[in-house]
Amino acid sequence: MSAETGRIEAFSDGVYAIAITLLILDVRVPASAPGQLGHALARQWPTYIAFFISFAFIGVMWVNHHRLFNHIRRSDNRLLFLNLLLLLGVTVVPFPTALLAAHYNAADRTIATAVFNGTYFIIAIFFNVLWHHAVRAGLLDSESVESAAAISTQYGMGPTAYLLCLLLTWISAPASLLVNIGLALFFALPPRVATRKDQKRMPGATK
Amino acid sequence: MSAETGRIEAFSDGVYAIAITLLILDVRVPASAPGQLGHALARQWPTYIAFFISFAFIGVMWVNHHRLFNHIRRSDNRLLFLNLLLLLGVTVVPFPTALLAAHYNAADRTIATAVFNGTYFIIAIFFNVLWHHAVRAGLLDSESVESAAAISTQYGMGPTAYLLCLLLTWISAPASLLVNIGLALFFALPPRVATRKDQKRMPGATK
Amino acid sequence: MSAETGRIEAFSDGVYAIAITLLILDVRVPASAPGQLGHALARQWPTYIAFFISFAFIGVMWVNHHRLFNHIRRSDNRLLFLNLLLLLGVTVVPFPTALLAAHYNAADRTIATAVFNGTYFIIAIFFNVLWHHAVRAGLLDSESVESAAAISTQYGMGPTAYLLCLLLTWISAPASLLVNIGLALFFALPPRVATRKDQKRMPGATK
Amino acid sequence: MSAETGRIEAFSDGVYAIAITLLILDVRVPASAPGQLGHALARQWPTYIAFFISFAFIGVMWVNHHRLFNHIRRSDNRLLFLNLLLLLGVTVVPFPTALLAAHYNAADRTIATAVFNGTYFIIAIFFNVLWHHAVRAGLLDSESVESAAAISTQYGMGPTAYLLCLLLTWISAPASLLVNIGLALFFALPPRVATRKDQKRMPGATK
Repeated sequence: MSAETGRIEAFSDGVYAIAITLLILDVRVPASAPGQLGHALARQWPTYIAFFISFAFIGVMWVNHHRLFNHIRRSDNRLLFLNLLLLLGVTVVPFPTALLAAHYNAADRTIATAVFNGTYFIIAIFFNVLWHHAVRAGLLDSESVESAAAISTQYGMGPTAYLLCLLLTWISAPASLLVNIGLALFFALPPRVATRKDQKRMPGATK
Repeated sequence: MSAETGRIEAFSDGVYAIAITLLILDVRVPASAPGQLGHALARQWPTYIAFFISFAFIGVMWVNHHRLFNHIRRSDNRLLFLNLLLLLGVTVVPFPTALLAAHYNAADRTIATAVFNGTYFIIAIFFNVLWHHAVRAGLLDSESVESAAAISTQYGMGPTAYLLCLLLTWISAPASLLVNIGLALFFALPPRVATRKDQKRMPGATK
Repeated sequence: MSAETGRIEAFSDGVYAIAITLLILDVRVPASAPGQLGHALARQWPTYIAFFISFAFIGVMWVNHHRLFNHIRRSDNRLLFLNLLLLLGVTVVPFPTALLAAHYNAADRTIATAVFNGTYFIIAIFFNVLWHHAVRAGLLDSESVESAAAISTQYGMGPTAYLLCLLLTWISAPASLLVNIGLALFFALPPRVATRKDQKRMPGATK
Repeated sequence: MSAETGRIEAFSDGVYAIAITLLILDVRVPASAPGQLGHALARQWPTYIAFFISFAFIGVMWVNHHRLFNHIRRSDNRLLFLNLLLLLGVTVVPFPTALLAAHYNAADRTIATAVFNGTYFIIAIFFNVLWHHAVRAGLLDSESVESAAAISTQYGMGPTAYLLCLLLTWISAPASLLVNIGLALFFALPPRVATRKDQKRMPGATK
């Protein structure tokens, strides 16, 4: 974090924090006959899964935002708007998640899954557009060339991987969701080359 | 950002972040017969447009708030309340947007569009009142006279332009909405003279 | 703001920002017959008044919180919890406001107004408890003895004034609401002796 | 707070602030016949109790988070995710609380109470996992060995105590809730050995 990007990060943290906290509003106390609460709670398991997946995905996106802005030192007008575009993707997440939870066990599973996977395809593009602008406009910390390159490599795989995941929906919706979860785990890990560098660098970076 | 205005900005960032994130609550999973989810999703397109417009407009207002407070160095009691007045305008945005989405395809398009355009007319006045107080009370950074003048010029056009946009509603609601979107694009861009100065100054401003 | 109280203020700013932004959720698009939107919008005027009053009152409370923590330099375990108690009062505000909006034009006006006025009576007590603890435990900035005394004087009037306002409810609900609004205006202004001192001191206080 | 953990704390503060502020949305204006508002308000007392308990519990968890990060100086990738896991527990709180409020006076009291107590059992585990990782990975401030040991001792009791509380549910739901409240009071207090050290150390820690 640099002083110059401080307010972008504060605003973004606010958006992430709210988006991740609002998710619980979709988990409702079920209507149930007396003595049947246990069954009623068990029956809404897709809602819990959807809640946990959304929470995890927004969490992973927050960690990635944090990682990018560890390298970004300067801001310009375009960065402000590309960051807003990325946040647009983040705030949208509760909608495809609720859609998937409502339709996973029904006739419209494919379309609901496609909207869900498609959302992450678009977010992957937004992440890349933001990062490439920061690289090309020279907004990065000059000391972190290597770990920035590692991020570029990891992120570059994102759009293609999520597009394949989206196309897989029409072959097998459950398989595409497993791939989507696998991709989230992949992006949860720091990019390989950067890991050691990054951790050595981090303590000093914000001094 | 100066230390003195830091808490005003933190509070404002919180309000902007929440207002922009709450917008998704108005995009609901549609009720649909089995196999009809695709059609049901497509039919609620005015809701998506309303969501995107609100998101973009609040985003532009955040960027402008950010821009103003890059120049404001000191605060006084009146600034606190004029800032609250501006935030009042920001938090209100979801209401006229939902109104417009609900009535755009119906008999009450004109009144819904007028409320929507009127909201931005009032916000434009609030932005000017805040900025003029900061200029007159000497709360600005003394080094940024030129870019402050450019902001004053750009903002000074706001109320008149939004008033014309509001009056246009009764001639053509769709045309008035296009003008409103055009005005948002105009205010998304940094004021002309200030651009170069501003970017040279910014890195040092928060040191 | 001192480094030590920074996180208390950041958390409190978050709570204030959310409480003030959630208020708009109670302003809903009214159901209306085609061509009747204007009337339907006009008919829900108590909702708009309730929204503006709540927004203004939470805004005034934020300004006062800001003012207090300009003087508070150190924190202890009790301050954390007294601040939470105060925030409890702030987050509750939407409930009595919605109650008042729903029942002002009906048989239960007195009880709804009493709950509304009673909430501010309790918040006035919480403000005093927090402030008195900060004074007695020596948590204040040593340079601001005079303006702290002015705050103590102004705040000391709060509980009695709000109790009288609450009792007035059973004589005249409308009159008690006017008194409540008058009290908010009184606490919006900085305490008299402190004003000049405070403004001279503020720029350096956060260096 | 150190610069390096600053953004984790800002994000966490946001989540806590939103979670604690959203609670009021579950307190609704009751439907009532004219003149019966007082009775209608009194009848929903379990909702008020649930609101106050949730507010107090999230407040206590915030104070504990604050306490832990007073000692944590460095961050690593795992800390980011263990913190997200803890925040998952925090954001979930409104759901078991609403469940308890809806079913406390009915046939399903035991299951609702078990879900409520079970949530805090899991959160106690999450707190311990986060803290133990910070201790073992050497992320702590080197000066606070003693007070860190006191925290480890206090926290080590958490999972066992909350498990016993959970098991007590099937013997007596009301008794288990009283134990749960007692545990919250226990964790509201700073750990014994640390108290004096901590307060002496705190003013300098964030310099």
